[in-house]
Amino acid sequence: MTTTPVRTEHAERTDPYPTRGPREVTTARQDPVVWPASGTPGRSGAPGPVSRADLAGFERDGFLTVDRLIGPDEVALYRAELERLVSDPGVRADERSVIEPTSQDVRSVFEVHRISEIFAGLVRDERVVGRARQILGSDVYVHQSRINVKPGFGASGFYWHSDFETWHAEDGLPNMRTVSVSIALTENYDTNGGLMIMPGSHRSFLGCAGETPRDNYKQSLKMQDAGTPSHEALTRMADEHGIRLFTGRAGSATWFDCNCMHGSGDNITPYPRSNVFIVFNSVENAAVEPFAAPAPRPEFIGARDFTPVR
Amino acid sequence: MTTTPVRTEHAERTDPYPTRGPREVTTARQDPVVWPASGTPGRSGAPGPVSRADLAGFERDGFLTVDRLIGPDEVALYRAELERLVSDPGVRADERSVIEPTSQDVRSVFEVHRISEIFAGLVRDERVVGRARQILGSDVYVHQSRINVKPGFGASGFYWHSDFETWHAEDGLPNMRTVSVSIALTENYDTNGGLMIMPGSHRSFLGCAGETPRDNYKQSLKMQDAGTPSHEALTRMADEHGIRLFTGRAGSATWFDCNCMHGSGDNITPYPRSNVFIVFNSVENAAVEPFAAPAPRPEFIGARDFTPVR
Repeated sequence: MTTTPVRTEHAERTDPYPTRGPREVTTARQDPVVWPASGTPGRSGAPGPVSRADLAGFERDGFLTVDRLIGPDEVALYRAELERLVSDPGVRADERSVIEPTSQDVRSVFEVHRISEIFAGLVRDERVVGRARQILGSDVYVHQSRINVKPGFGASGFYWHSDFETWHAEDGLPNMRTVSVSIALTENYDTNGGLMIMPGSHRSFLGCAGETPRDNYKQSLKMQDAGTPSHEALTRMADEHGIRLFTGRAGSATWFDCNCMHGSGDNITPYPRSNVFIVFNSVENAAVEPFAAPAPRPEFIGARDFTPVR
Repeated sequence: MTTTPVRTEHAERTDPYPTRGPREVTTARQDPVVWPASGTPGRSGAPGPVSRADLAGFERDGFLTVDRLIGPDEVALYRAELERLVSDPGVRADERSVIEPTSQDVRSVFEVHRISEIFAGLVRDERVVGRARQILGSDVYVHQSRINVKPGFGASGFYWHSDFETWHAEDGLPNMRTVSVSIALTENYDTNGGLMIMPGSHRSFLGCAGETPRDNYKQSLKMQDAGTPSHEALTRMADEHGIRLFTGRAGSATWFDCNCMHGSGDNITPYPRSNVFIVFNSVENAAVEPFAAPAPRPEFIGARDFTPVR
């Protein structure tokens, strides 16, 4: 295991996933992708709704799609709630909202499971949290939640990144025991800036070069900067893994491992791409001090309340 | 037929395709899509390499794809020539080159069939010019040619537009008797910012609102501005026609009518999207005074030499 000593206010600790140093460095993944149920060592995978074949696919590719995880009536309910939130002046003015630079529309609202009882209900839904518990092999809490609106007619995308790289460096998640779900609230076409993942990229960790500036999150929510992979690394990874574009009907879900290299293009079509995005972390992987940032990001981006979802 | 009188220095004339006026206005197409051979009225389609079924598809959809129009050896030849041109400091400094704002790389080189004997040969190739003559039913000349490089890692796309709208307003092409071919010199994936067309959109003309500023072309080659369709019009057209994304191997060609509503997204993948783009106009549709601009664009963008390709 390659480890780098990290000096914090509290003690020296070793870092299995060094990043934001002088050079870009690749480290083999030290953690399972599908975790054995806590207290049952050796057993791969806790009980839950995901089939054995789908779990094996998730382990191999780093993602799992579920067609129509929620039905059309539920899509309508959540879309209406999304519309209500993004058009609420109080929500818009809230620091938890991110504004699209070109159109000045609301692009994302963070901590949406605390702002909205309707989205809180979705997080608790067994179809959602049950899969997270099964993949992570334990109780889980919400590290981050948000709704995203990628409006048509020119909304920009997100450049390539591994979420874990940021969550480890800036939020202090120690290990790769975190899974995200993106539930589509509009149809994802091949033309409106859908999620792209490099399948299998979750099996190695790309530590990025460059120190984290203070309050980096204010910039990086709009445009990735520190924690950005080099052209050389992205070319090597894309050549090795390929790039998969996700399309699908509203109500479909994509689960993906915290260390998948992913991104999305812009959206010039008239069709907005809206989704609700929930990040579940294992209660056994609760955030500690950031591994490569002066201070943790605000709690609405990276939770410090580790109460399990029930 | 809806016509609008246009006052020029020479005489008053009627305009079958009004645009750049105070309001956006839709006009039914006044011209054939596949033209009868000149001198043989009533016969639809001149002789040539395109099959009757493919011609019917072109008439209906406004486009026609030809898998591997040129072979791998030819792709290698034209790619090498493209690389030579975009890395030549003399070409880079030429006014016919367009520089990508973010990366400062060469994005396009215009009039490439005059700059390069190799691309001049491609224009004269019967597989290329033969199809243009067949679709347009006459001899043809090159209204515009260019090579495009859409580099990876963030090259921006082109917003929605009809080429004919610009060529009519700013270059003075009187009628829709013009066809473009884009020959891919790299693979077009579903992820690297390929051409998107609204199939069938070529059957009506969207006249855009707003007056043309002087030297508009200097801005519009980088980012579309005057001549830009409204959100309402694009939504209506996309709902009616759908959006088709073109993918395919290097060497494949997409022929499309001058009035197709088309655009492309950005490209954050490591894979550049390069092509050679040739616009053939009928010698019977030679450019006149611009219909809605103070002066014609430079000849390297809109030719005033109507010598047929032989």
